[in-house]
Amino acid sequence: MKQSTTPLLIRIDERRPLQQQIYAEVRRAILEGVVAPGARLLSSRALADELTVSRTTTLLAYEQLVAEGYLTSHQGSGTFVARELPDDMPGIRVSTAASKTREARISKRGAELAAVPPPGLRVGGPPRPFRLGTPGLDLFPVRLWSKLAHRRLKSATLVQLDYGDARGLPLLREAIAEHVSSARGTRCTADHVIIVAGAQRGVEMICRLVLDPGDRAWTEEPGYPGARSALLAAGADIVPVRVDGDGLDVSYGERRAPDARLAYVTPSHQFPAGVPMSLSRRLALLKWASRARSWVVEDDYDSEFRYGTRAVPCLHGLDVDGCVIYVGSFAKTLFPALRLGFLIVPPGLRETIRAVRRASDVHPPTLDQATLADLMIEGHYQRHLRQMRAAYLERLGALSDALRRFCGDAVRLRPVRTGLHAVADLYGADAVRVHQEAAARGVEATPLSAYFIGRPKDANALVLGFAAIGPESIVKGAEKLAGAIEAARKGGGSGARLNAS
Amino acid sequence: MKQSTTPLLIRIDERRPLQQQIYAEVRRAILEGVVAPGARLLSSRALADELTVSRTTTLLAYEQLVAEGYLTSHQGSGTFVARELPDDMPGIRVSTAASKTREARISKRGAELAAVPPPGLRVGGPPRPFRLGTPGLDLFPVRLWSKLAHRRLKSATLVQLDYGDARGLPLLREAIAEHVSSARGTRCTADHVIIVAGAQRGVEMICRLVLDPGDRAWTEEPGYPGARSALLAAGADIVPVRVDGDGLDVSYGERRAPDARLAYVTPSHQFPAGVPMSLSRRLALLKWASRARSWVVEDDYDSEFRYGTRAVPCLHGLDVDGCVIYVGSFAKTLFPALRLGFLIVPPGLRETIRAVRRASDVHPPTLDQATLADLMIEGHYQRHLRQMRAAYLERLGALSDALRRFCGDAVRLRPVRTGLHAVADLYGADAVRVHQEAAARGVEATPLSAYFIGRPKDANALVLGFAAIGPESIVKGAEKLAGAIEAARKGGGSGARLNAS
Repeated sequence: MKQSTTPLLIRIDERRPLQQQIYAEVRRAILEGVVAPGARLLSSRALADELTVSRTTTLLAYEQLVAEGYLTSHQGSGTFVARELPDDMPGIRVSTAASKTREARISKRGAELAAVPPPGLRVGGPPRPFRLGTPGLDLFPVRLWSKLAHRRLKSATLVQLDYGDARGLPLLREAIAEHVSSARGTRCTADHVIIVAGAQRGVEMICRLVLDPGDRAWTEEPGYPGARSALLAAGADIVPVRVDGDGLDVSYGERRAPDARLAYVTPSHQFPAGVPMSLSRRLALLKWASRARSWVVEDDYDSEFRYGTRAVPCLHGLDVDGCVIYVGSFAKTLFPALRLGFLIVPPGLRETIRAVRRASDVHPPTLDQATLADLMIEGHYQRHLRQMRAAYLERLGALSDALRRFCGDAVRLRPVRTGLHAVADLYGADAVRVHQEAAARGVEATPLSAYFIGRPKDANALVLGFAAIGPESIVKGAEKLAGAIEAARKGGGSGARLNAS
Repeated sequence: MKQSTTPLLIRIDERRPLQQQIYAEVRRAILEGVVAPGARLLSSRALADELTVSRTTTLLAYEQLVAEGYLTSHQGSGTFVARELPDDMPGIRVSTAASKTREARISKRGAELAAVPPPGLRVGGPPRPFRLGTPGLDLFPVRLWSKLAHRRLKSATLVQLDYGDARGLPLLREAIAEHVSSARGTRCTADHVIIVAGAQRGVEMICRLVLDPGDRAWTEEPGYPGARSALLAAGADIVPVRVDGDGLDVSYGERRAPDARLAYVTPSHQFPAGVPMSLSRRLALLKWASRARSWVVEDDYDSEFRYGTRAVPCLHGLDVDGCVIYVGSFAKTLFPALRLGFLIVPPGLRETIRAVRRASDVHPPTLDQATLADLMIEGHYQRHLRQMRAAYLERLGALSDALRRFCGDAVRLRPVRTGLHAVADLYGADAVRVHQEAAARGVEATPLSAYFIGRPKDANALVLGFAAIGPESIVKGAEKLAGAIEAARKGGGSGARLNAS
């Protein structure tokens, strides 16, 4: 036999995301020195058996830890605690002597916050096929943006260099109100708009304001990990509500948790399943929220990119009772590093947000806000959206063609009406195996099952981003993906069993 | 008699900042419609009598509400609820019908957060004498900054436009570590540095991570309102600890709250009293923190500007036990609207902060960070600090001369060894009256008593910023201030009584 494995005592709370708990527990064991550098861990399969969870769950938790440098994985011989820990680790280990005092000095709330899992597998580095969450940065008009920014910077006034409005720059709030009113089918004025340091910050702030620890919150199942992170950071009790072809199954949610205080939804383009929420479901959701006095957080993250279909009005536009908080992002329409997003909030929340902002980040950088305002007011933003819509349609077409050409019947793309990613159902090969084989080939192909909190259903599929890279790279990526599928098929019967376990 | 006054039922909690509670309660009464637009309120004096608090306290609370547009004040006839409420108010009033549901849907935590008072009297508009918290923006090298920013913007890479490191840009963290090591007498590496969206955000994040609701925290008395806001937002129980000529009185703190989990201090230049903390007090503070397993938050907000004196090492440099969290800001050294600051944290907190950041604001805008890194690496930052030090010394000299010339014996400036503001003791005129008279003349002269949570002591003084305006404006401001003092003296005996009440 090989080197013996180090046992891991992992406590699992059935109601919280399993993969993320396993990730956090293994990482904690490493940080606290429970498992030594170089120690061999249980295989992901054995750990899955021990915890009676799906192997997808343990495998993805291990992969995240490998990606972050906590674990190393050797083909055939197993998974080990890294001997060279990530660059921020030595400091932690140096002060082992003080670790007891240090631990004692972190608050209970701090420990809970520290245990909040990262919002998904973020790989980093230059874009590769088929990365999620990154838009077509290769087509971003860097020269135009830097021209507008330069104009603002060199003419900055004393008032613009000083502290500004905690709700965000009035000029930008007006431009956003106008854009949203014409583009997203809802009415609002600058008074309703609050500029935030990215949509994630907006969601996190809202969760903290409208939820008390222990309050229940609906999330979509499968769903967006960033929202779950924000909810967990707020101490929420997450209730996964299944998604079908019409989006969130509201009546299922009402049966499981009628008293939830918040529902987080992505109605324009469900993340990750890709379906839009039907009008009847939208109305049912609003009816529930109104009756239950709950909040609906509508994350409209990539709704600007629609392909040929007419827009269903956003939830906010249907809301007569002030239940809906709308979250908008510029990370997908412009670039993530800008860290700007916005909220549209009902009057009752505005003063609260203002108070919270003054005690924390005050407002996002003024000159970035001013540059964005100019981009919108001068019509560049609209033009950029039009151009990107065309480019994304081309990229989607390239993906669709290339998958048909290289993968044949092994892959079937679900219809894409909106957004920057597609869901590809797999036939005859297991998605997690394909994901691994693809990673070895430099291709990011995320299994749909990674986005479930509970047991994945109809999830032998990959979530493929088509926005971040050009058509030629997409074609090359599809060819490599075909190779990965082939290898996963040859890998034997294990694959087919994985998701069923 | 005049129009009758509307009674206000104000509940006061002795342990929390009184002025801020009164502000919040009156505002709430207005928002909830308990007092109608146009209603006359009790005079600040009568309210002070009713609540048995100092009139300074009620007066400053009213002034804040007048500044924000909730109240109007008519010389001689009293204080009224504004008929035209602030621009964000109509929305709140329109939806009165839904106010019951809306109230029910805000969480307990949200209501507590909403009640957190604003961090001080922020007036806004172009700089005037003697504004606090605003540096000499008239001397900021706008052209240099925009040149560096433009270079970064137009050459932005795909990786720089995408999501980045949750701890901040490595290049900037290295530049900061190097600067702090040479300029602030402490050693740290880039690994210890975390870039935050302003020092206020840094303090707020730390408070939330190391404190549980109800934990006690020392603040300086008098002290910085921004820190109190952050602590209240974290649910802390604030314990004001008196400041004397050597800074925070550590033994007083140990008697009042030996078990506090955190102490917030400004050792380089106590805000607002202006004294540096003595070395023996620094060592006593660290000894307490180490024994009590508590955290010390060292806010080094304007320490870069020293006038002729040798630097006492910062607390962080004396800390062998990893108790100190250092907070640095670029708001005072560059410009507030940049919204960049940094933390230096012990290893045990780093992973926690990273987890929290990924679930909230992720990281500050990358290109702003890159521009700042270039500024530091290319030596511009150091040069700017040297130039500003000379300019501030000149401005301080102008203030000192002008006060002597126009105000004579009525004003005595306490020694200023560091920073961007001075404390001026008043003789024969009451600081709150002078503040009012000065405001009527377009001069900002904040009473020292405004920064006390409890009963002000040795506080018939004004806190005067000398950084935001040039020497000529300082001279003009001093002349107006002399007029204000004269008017306050003539105003009769009431002044002298105010602070003693």
